[in-house]
Amino acid sequence: MNMTKYIPVLQSLLFVLLLSFSGHAQEHPSLILTKAGVEKIRAELGNIPIFDATLEKVKAEVDAEIALGIDTPLPKDYSGGYTHERHKRNFFILQKAGVLYQILNDEKYALYIKDMLFQYEGMYKDLPVHPQTRSYARGKLFWQCLNDSNWLVYVSQAYDCVYDYLSKKERKQLEKNLFRPFADYISIENPQFYNRVHNHSTWGNAAVGMIGLVMGDEELIQRALYGIEDDGLPIGAKDNDGGFIKVEGQKAGFLANIDEPFSPDGYYTEGPYYQRYAMYPFLIFAEALHNVRPQQKIFEHKDGVLLKSVNTLLSLSDADGEFFPLNDAQKGMSYHSRELVTAVDIAYHYGNHNPQLLSIAEEQGQVLLDDSGLAVALGIREGKSEDFQKKSIKLSDGANGDQGGVAILRYGNEAMTLVYKYAAQGLSHGHYDKLSFSLYEKGTEILQDYGLARFVNIEQKGGGNYLKENTTWAKQTIAHNTLVQNETSHFEGKYEVGSQHHSELYFFDASNPEVQVVSAKEQNAYPGTEMHRTMALIKTDGFEKPFVLDILRVGSNAANQYDLPFYFKGQVMQTNFDFTTPKSLEPLGSDNGYQHLWSEGLGQPKGDNSQLSWLENGRFYTLTTATNNDDELHFVRIGANDPEFNLRRDAGLIIRRKNTKNTTFVSILESHGHYSPVSEFSVNANSSISKIELMLDTKEYTAVLIDAKSNTEQTLLILANENKNVNKEHIIEIKGKEYRWTGPYQFIKIN
Amino acid sequence: MNMTKYIPVLQSLLFVLLLSFSGHAQEHPSLILTKAGVEKIRAELGNIPIFDATLEKVKAEVDAEIALGIDTPLPKDYSGGYTHERHKRNFFILQKAGVLYQILNDEKYALYIKDMLFQYEGMYKDLPVHPQTRSYARGKLFWQCLNDSNWLVYVSQAYDCVYDYLSKKERKQLEKNLFRPFADYISIENPQFYNRVHNHSTWGNAAVGMIGLVMGDEELIQRALYGIEDDGLPIGAKDNDGGFIKVEGQKAGFLANIDEPFSPDGYYTEGPYYQRYAMYPFLIFAEALHNVRPQQKIFEHKDGVLLKSVNTLLSLSDADGEFFPLNDAQKGMSYHSRELVTAVDIAYHYGNHNPQLLSIAEEQGQVLLDDSGLAVALGIREGKSEDFQKKSIKLSDGANGDQGGVAILRYGNEAMTLVYKYAAQGLSHGHYDKLSFSLYEKGTEILQDYGLARFVNIEQKGGGNYLKENTTWAKQTIAHNTLVQNETSHFEGKYEVGSQHHSELYFFDASNPEVQVVSAKEQNAYPGTEMHRTMALIKTDGFEKPFVLDILRVGSNAANQYDLPFYFKGQVMQTNFDFTTPKSLEPLGSDNGYQHLWSEGLGQPKGDNSQLSWLENGRFYTLTTATNNDDELHFVRIGANDPEFNLRRDAGLIIRRKNTKNTTFVSILESHGHYSPVSEFSVNANSSISKIELMLDTKEYTAVLIDAKSNTEQTLLILANENKNVNKEHIIEIKGKEYRWTGPYQFIKIN
Repeated sequence: MNMTKYIPVLQSLLFVLLLSFSGHAQEHPSLILTKAGVEKIRAELGNIPIFDATLEKVKAEVDAEIALGIDTPLPKDYSGGYTHERHKRNFFILQKAGVLYQILNDEKYALYIKDMLFQYEGMYKDLPVHPQTRSYARGKLFWQCLNDSNWLVYVSQAYDCVYDYLSKKERKQLEKNLFRPFADYISIENPQFYNRVHNHSTWGNAAVGMIGLVMGDEELIQRALYGIEDDGLPIGAKDNDGGFIKVEGQKAGFLANIDEPFSPDGYYTEGPYYQRYAMYPFLIFAEALHNVRPQQKIFEHKDGVLLKSVNTLLSLSDADGEFFPLNDAQKGMSYHSRELVTAVDIAYHYGNHNPQLLSIAEEQGQVLLDDSGLAVALGIREGKSEDFQKKSIKLSDGANGDQGGVAILRYGNEAMTLVYKYAAQGLSHGHYDKLSFSLYEKGTEILQDYGLARFVNIEQKGGGNYLKENTTWAKQTIAHNTLVQNETSHFEGKYEVGSQHHSELYFFDASNPEVQVVSAKEQNAYPGTEMHRTMALIKTDGFEKPFVLDILRVGSNAANQYDLPFYFKGQVMQTNFDFTTPKSLEPLGSDNGYQHLWSEGLGQPKGDNSQLSWLENGRFYTLTTATNNDDELHFVRIGANDPEFNLRRDAGLIIRRKNTKNTTFVSILESHGHYSPVSEFSVNANSSISKIELMLDTKEYTAVLIDAKSNTEQTLLILANENKNVNKEHIIEIKGKEYRWTGPYQFIKIN
Repeated sequence: MNMTKYIPVLQSLLFVLLLSFSGHAQEHPSLILTKAGVEKIRAELGNIPIFDATLEKVKAEVDAEIALGIDTPLPKDYSGGYTHERHKRNFFILQKAGVLYQILNDEKYALYIKDMLFQYEGMYKDLPVHPQTRSYARGKLFWQCLNDSNWLVYVSQAYDCVYDYLSKKERKQLEKNLFRPFADYISIENPQFYNRVHNHSTWGNAAVGMIGLVMGDEELIQRALYGIEDDGLPIGAKDNDGGFIKVEGQKAGFLANIDEPFSPDGYYTEGPYYQRYAMYPFLIFAEALHNVRPQQKIFEHKDGVLLKSVNTLLSLSDADGEFFPLNDAQKGMSYHSRELVTAVDIAYHYGNHNPQLLSIAEEQGQVLLDDSGLAVALGIREGKSEDFQKKSIKLSDGANGDQGGVAILRYGNEAMTLVYKYAAQGLSHGHYDKLSFSLYEKGTEILQDYGLARFVNIEQKGGGNYLKENTTWAKQTIAHNTLVQNETSHFEGKYEVGSQHHSELYFFDASNPEVQVVSAKEQNAYPGTEMHRTMALIKTDGFEKPFVLDILRVGSNAANQYDLPFYFKGQVMQTNFDFTTPKSLEPLGSDNGYQHLWSEGLGQPKGDNSQLSWLENGRFYTLTTATNNDDELHFVRIGANDPEFNLRRDAGLIIRRKNTKNTTFVSILESHGHYSPVSEFSVNANSSISKIELMLDTKEYTAVLIDAKSNTEQTLLILANENKNVNKEHIIEIKGKEYRWTGPYQFIKIN
């Protein structure tokens, strides 16, 4: 193997120099625990409730595993299978045993780690590549290098904790036969995995870097930070998920993985589900770097984006702490996950001791058993905790923050939360859903984003991996609450095309909590067609709660069929239009996700407004949409062409407008009233809307009238479609009346 | 009107006599509050936390209503509509205002009641029958006499509380123009409503009796207790729900309504949902009777069944307190309902001060603002509360306890609960589901009973009334987890036939918590066919949790098609058999509920056992069933022929065995492992069963072998099919081995 292939001469020199200085001087532990930190923890033990409780739980867990004995089976299974889950459990337990050894100073933990490490050492030398062949980068202990990297990230910490417990000879043996070849395997032997900007590579980089820090192996540390210089990879190759392995001018290594996927606002382009997954290697390696080589100033890198991103990620959750399922995302993942315990504790300790993070830690009910966890436990003990305030925010996407983004509009302590996506593709986990949205009332999904089609780690369902319906359904545009033209997905569902484009924020204004507006445009999803969608969260007289106003303008140089779906949950209560239901169910279409929709009913508008009401989770909801007589209202149900029952049987209503070049969809989604099966009282079960009307719709201006049943006043939202300058003054006339305002929009009460 | 038509001479005499003695002597209040009780409450106020808290809440509610002003609109709507909901709210508030007046001694509440009563008095005189025509017994304030009766039951209490506040002249005016005509209207003018054994009549009887007690009107009291003697109703007439109005030899009145629908065990034949509904008039009128005329000894009637039935009803709930939806029942109704607050408080006060009722009251978080509520509040204050113990029980059905029944098998503090129904028809709210069952893990439905097809009080859905799918789907046999022969329902779905029959308990034994068994037979559902279903809840080695063993023997004098459905919830994980899914969905059949099932997939057994696993609410479940190669495994989904989206899109698996006279279905339902979308750990996701086998199946004996994967031991359940004598000794040989035991069954570990 030619080392000069991937280490530049200068770095090699530096490496030799540093080795002679720091290689032997380094204390252990030093990654997530420090000698000083351990002293402090031992001094406070018994007096730091949340830390003590976590310690007790972890001790019980590790003790039970020690009692069971060590098992390092020959690798065989996909995730969910025994060998996979056993090795996974091993690395979690090793890491925990390491901190227990340091904190409790009980040799049995060190011995357990030593024994298991040598069992791995004996096995690894001759271990072939994992027998399962599905991955583009097969691991050795696991079916993919990604999981091998998980293993090394955790086991490095265990090794750090028992470093001084082991003899020099033992360390040499482990490093020579296990750690160094392990690190080389996941990096130089798998550059297609290691040398990318991708959450996989972040894990790989962190793994190599963590073990490098313990071993004082500067070559590994440099490889972790900067990647492999000459990886020999062809431009344009793709991984299992269809993501690019290498593109022109691609950087690699841990720093590149911070620089590129994070926007300056701390939004991670793959979305919160994967940000959560990547947070652990990002922060744990950053913590280790900070401790071992503070001169790297890793927490200041890119304007402190790593710590900032923790706040961003917390903001990307609903009232229950569950992350919005943007792009590939398994629903239910939340800030109660272990990765977020790490993230919150590290952000607190190495950030500015933000007291709002303490309330999240309290909700999590556990802390890291390290220096940062101690800091959090002390903060809580001292009563510094404050509620975490989730506000309305816009988050830019793209390394420089210029590739669209995501906006969250919130009203009344998350009573209502609108998630609007006008971001970039989001790498290989991105969905084709420009200008899509979802809606939450507290922690309940009202209009849902489907999320992914996968049962993570459940072996019975396709080995726990992505199911084919993820591609054929979940990623397709029709699976989202956004516009579909001619039954094709945005960018024709082509990653190569989609990854070159992003939507553009037009304006965002959440300064008035009663009228919050976000507006964005998309010009590339369908060449020759421009979409402009404005979403407002409005609380005004005549409505019990805030409602969502959705104005979607589309203009094209050709006549098209436009489909606008709303995926509602719960039971249909009422429509104000007639519909028929078929005797047998047929799929709505044949491709691009349409093959997965059963056509459950077809309605025709009766008047200028079409209404659908439903009941979900004890609350009533009504969608009111301005319709033409030629519009079709399709009731759909997910689940057609689903031979293995991989999809949920959820419902949707699609508004279909045919043979149209330019049109504007105007809809309002209300939450109203409540119903309890215990009291059997039904309260405010009807929509408060008398009428919505598109009063004006020109190239320059769009005006929507909202008439509430109980109101003598009507309201009007006027948009300037082409000039978003906040100082621009506008004057228009609608039905003989003049309106005058400044800025891109105006919400007016009229008589 | 000829009074002698409905009051026998003797009663008339008694009436005159009593009038002269008790009519003037009676104190007020005396129904649910007594003068002495009010004194005691006033003395304890501020020192009885749960009472004080309830009082504060009720006061806030009533004060808000008083501030809004009184509205008694002209009756117009069905339930859910404004006039219905307003009058309903009025009677609740009047009752509450009454107790507030007594407890707080604040005249504003008395005045409010007086004003509203006189508004009703002014209106009632000339009020026509309610304009909505759907009911077999239309009311005046409401669309059915039932709701008018609700009104009078509550308003009588308010009148009792302000009786002394009103002048004699005012009372006379109210009684003459409002109360007496009101009582007459719902009774002698609507005998088809009043003079039945039915929850409707219970309300009517209580209403007439309650106002009779306040007014000291002995004629009304007698009419309440004993009904109308000569009601002139034809035999065989039916109500809206298809229930009989009058059958041969029918009794009537409040006492008959205790005697007939309650079994000696306190099981109410309509099921827990309607028992809950009827509990209020039963207990509130009983309380009033007890207070005003203790000589009636109402709480001792029929061996104290009224108070006993409260315990029975509480036992008919899952771990969350939600009632099992036997027969017509809306899911979600629970012992947190107002009716159960009444029931629990009265049962505590007038029963033996059972300390377990106090923990239910604590869960309810409120008490009645009367003498019984005070008793509960004092009990809680004094720390007497104990956990309510729900045990495995069998409850007989029928007035004499000889018409089958319902059994509940519970394991480990409701960790697993099996509900098995082998009862009588359950009057007009009964479903055609002999030998059906449902299964709960804590408060989660695993194998569901569909419940009713109705959205109670939600006007948008058919005026809040029963939907036609209640008849065409919910009541049909195929909607339940029990056997269907030749795609027809039990008793051909004919109420006249079904109401003449009941299943028979064969045996019940819950003495060993690790092996609990209930067995019952049905001979009338399909003439010429006998069904014998034995269900066991077994916890044994090799299984993480208890499993359900289901042995359903069917024998017929003709070859039939047998369908055995299991309505599971959640997402399919895996099958061990191949199945195909159709390109378009067709209904499984054309009638008897089959028209509402989409045929979603068809599988064929691959071996002797067919398995289906699914994931629900973070737990894995597996159904293993012994199958023949000719069996068909139908995946179904509810929702076909449902033009108004009235049905839930829930799933089921139907095991179909064709052209068979005699056969035995043997199945096991396991709960195993868990999955969390937060940790993404999948634990014990696979069934623990290696094999189940019907080792022996003769007229006399059935033996089922269970082979667990992790076990060297196998287990065998042997049933004596014809002799249930617990002292009978049995000796049989299976595969050359002799088995010997005493009693109707034996569970044996073999090698």
